[in-house]
Amino acid sequence: MSAKNAIYAQSGGVTAVINASACGVIQTARRHPQQIGKVFAAKNGIIGALHEELIDTSLEDDVTIAKLLQTPSGAFGSCRYKLKEDGPEFSRLLEVFKAHDIGYFFYNGGGDSQDTANKVAQKSKQAGYPVTCIGIPKTVDNDLPFTDTCPGFGSVAKYTAISTLEASFDVASMAASSTKVFILEVMGRHAGWIAASSGLAGKEKNEAPHIILFPEIPFDQNHFLKRVADCVKSYGYCVVVASEGIRDAQGNFVSDSGLRDAFGHAQLGGVAPILAGLVKNELHLKYHWAVADYLQRAARHIASAVDLEQAYALGKSAVEMALAGHNAIMPIIIREQDSPYRWSIGQVALSDVANQEKAMPKEYIRADGYGITDLCRRYLEPLIQGEAYPTYKEGLPDYVRLKNQLVTKKLRTEDLLK
Amino acid sequence: MSAKNAIYAQSGGVTAVINASACGVIQTARRHPQQIGKVFAAKNGIIGALHEELIDTSLEDDVTIAKLLQTPSGAFGSCRYKLKEDGPEFSRLLEVFKAHDIGYFFYNGGGDSQDTANKVAQKSKQAGYPVTCIGIPKTVDNDLPFTDTCPGFGSVAKYTAISTLEASFDVASMAASSTKVFILEVMGRHAGWIAASSGLAGKEKNEAPHIILFPEIPFDQNHFLKRVADCVKSYGYCVVVASEGIRDAQGNFVSDSGLRDAFGHAQLGGVAPILAGLVKNELHLKYHWAVADYLQRAARHIASAVDLEQAYALGKSAVEMALAGHNAIMPIIIREQDSPYRWSIGQVALSDVANQEKAMPKEYIRADGYGITDLCRRYLEPLIQGEAYPTYKEGLPDYVRLKNQLVTKKLRTEDLLK
Repeated sequence: MSAKNAIYAQSGGVTAVINASACGVIQTARRHPQQIGKVFAAKNGIIGALHEELIDTSLEDDVTIAKLLQTPSGAFGSCRYKLKEDGPEFSRLLEVFKAHDIGYFFYNGGGDSQDTANKVAQKSKQAGYPVTCIGIPKTVDNDLPFTDTCPGFGSVAKYTAISTLEASFDVASMAASSTKVFILEVMGRHAGWIAASSGLAGKEKNEAPHIILFPEIPFDQNHFLKRVADCVKSYGYCVVVASEGIRDAQGNFVSDSGLRDAFGHAQLGGVAPILAGLVKNELHLKYHWAVADYLQRAARHIASAVDLEQAYALGKSAVEMALAGHNAIMPIIIREQDSPYRWSIGQVALSDVANQEKAMPKEYIRADGYGITDLCRRYLEPLIQGEAYPTYKEGLPDYVRLKNQLVTKKLRTEDLLK
Repeated sequence: MSAKNAIYAQSGGVTAVINASACGVIQTARRHPQQIGKVFAAKNGIIGALHEELIDTSLEDDVTIAKLLQTPSGAFGSCRYKLKEDGPEFSRLLEVFKAHDIGYFFYNGGGDSQDTANKVAQKSKQAGYPVTCIGIPKTVDNDLPFTDTCPGFGSVAKYTAISTLEASFDVASMAASSTKVFILEVMGRHAGWIAASSGLAGKEKNEAPHIILFPEIPFDQNHFLKRVADCVKSYGYCVVVASEGIRDAQGNFVSDSGLRDAFGHAQLGGVAPILAGLVKNELHLKYHWAVADYLQRAARHIASAVDLEQAYALGKSAVEMALAGHNAIMPIIIREQDSPYRWSIGQVALSDVANQEKAMPKEYIRADGYGITDLCRRYLEPLIQGEAYPTYKEGLPDYVRLKNQLVTKKLRTEDLLK
């Protein structure tokens, strides 16, 4: 069998370590030139593949590819786009694959992407041009099933725990005569994994975060305010970490609470300023609030070493599994042991993983709904171990920007999707 | 002359490195037991001194004191409180000083604090109980005169530049089909120093941040929106860094723009969501926004090594200057050379520094008002050099919490301020 080319694509929200998976794919492919020719990266995710916008990664030297390990974001661009089953998209994709002699498709994303990768495997086989499709897990939401954790999550968890710890020290210094309540908003529209990770910042009851608000627990305004007031009374201050996705008992997002600007425009606000408004108006306490947003998932400067290592290993394993003849699978992290933490790589069929979400177990949330349990701590702690510092140049991380040069198109433009 | 005790107090908003100055004071004092007895730290700043709440730092061992070097926030507590000239506060302070045999007062803060330290020097002399008063500069606002920079600023600048860089990589990955505009709000109510530091993240015109909003430049909504639209057109995305303190042409804070919640309560919003609302309503572009708030000034995990070294050196020098017989002065940073950066410690009379603010020079802001000049870059770059990483324990920075045990009060409670 002569060497076939490969396409690698990044999908969905990017992370601090998704490029480490890319690095694992490219470096491993380069070690097997008899089986894998070139690795093309789809520009801006699967949309690029549909439009035959393929980046030739062979134009980047080994040193540059190695720097992907320490560069956050998606080096080839990403997109939030799910291929439509009806219509011409899958067959167009196969046209592109054929035109560029693609034998391998590595799709680095969340549940939707694994579903797509699975369908490409099926449809390419049906079409008589079988492509080996391997999914590579990625999501800061940590919501993929089977895998013990998802690359990207450990680094957000570490950032969130550190930021909570640092801000709590700050508030504690000021609380006697100034700020009493600090609110940090973190990502998590459906599951509270990221908010939960802030719980690692403190072990004792008096240590921050004093209140974690999970999307899994309906937000009860009065109960929340009472808890804030109690905290301030007991400890002098209160640190709150809130998931962006918390909802009230009726299922409405708290962040979507009718805030309007002077012109009457609705402001989709972020939940932290809303909670701060409550604290101010109802409790008359001095507050500060922060919204981490992209800073949390892009914070490669303080990435978890475990997370980075797993992201790389999953990219590497994806290629090795493809070369070993596997198809329509996703490599996963298996937890062998909590302490000391030991993990290995396993695999799962894409048909099993596709479109499933892993919720946070109920036993991970404290009975009062405002904190994490020891079980949760035991799960989370290994994931934030180690500091995978990037190298620095002139005081800033030396993140790499690739040339991202496209290969010449082989299909007629009119054949491509508009 | 027998050894006198010292009081050290932290004042105003805390920083990632103010405890390094405390460490410099305490370690240096410990090396001179013939001249300095105990170092007491005022609990929660000058208010603690007024109430005779003095922390005995001699109860902390050398290892613990050394860990102050890597711990953000104010380890003894801080406050925003300026002593009133009229009334009994200064004389009460002197009563406390006499009762505890205080010969030295080290006051670690901004312009107000230097003024207070100066007055304590004068009034203690007038009262026949002369206390040696040395100010130690500190403020993330970087607005003290004479000193080349203020400890705390370099670390916020580094955090801001890194966060801007990381978020810009993230947006660049997503922009083709998703988020086009990212807005980061940073501190700076009067001066744009922190916002300016984000400019270090990019050198070329197409690199982020594409727009910096300074409090020094009146905010022109239409011009801003046009610039955002142009950026998205030219580069595919736009990264905006905004000072919290930007104002419109009438001098009103943009953040105070009449935002009301469903109950009609005013929301003191933060400027980032307001700008995001404009981008959404007027340009219909997809946006994300972040507010760094305390995360930026507490981010010891990525403190600037230069900043840390200067913070320590200023604390150390304060004690050495006191021992050398100086009084009513503040040690300062003198820039000897830009590149390679060289600095030394000088001093200035507190009467000169008190209550003055150093504005950002006009030549530091680009002619179009949306970026920094090369001159500004030359000033800022040295301040973010080096990564002063803390040690870690179980995945989190090993920040120290002190015992903060108070000494027995010697004054009758009724003599103290209520």
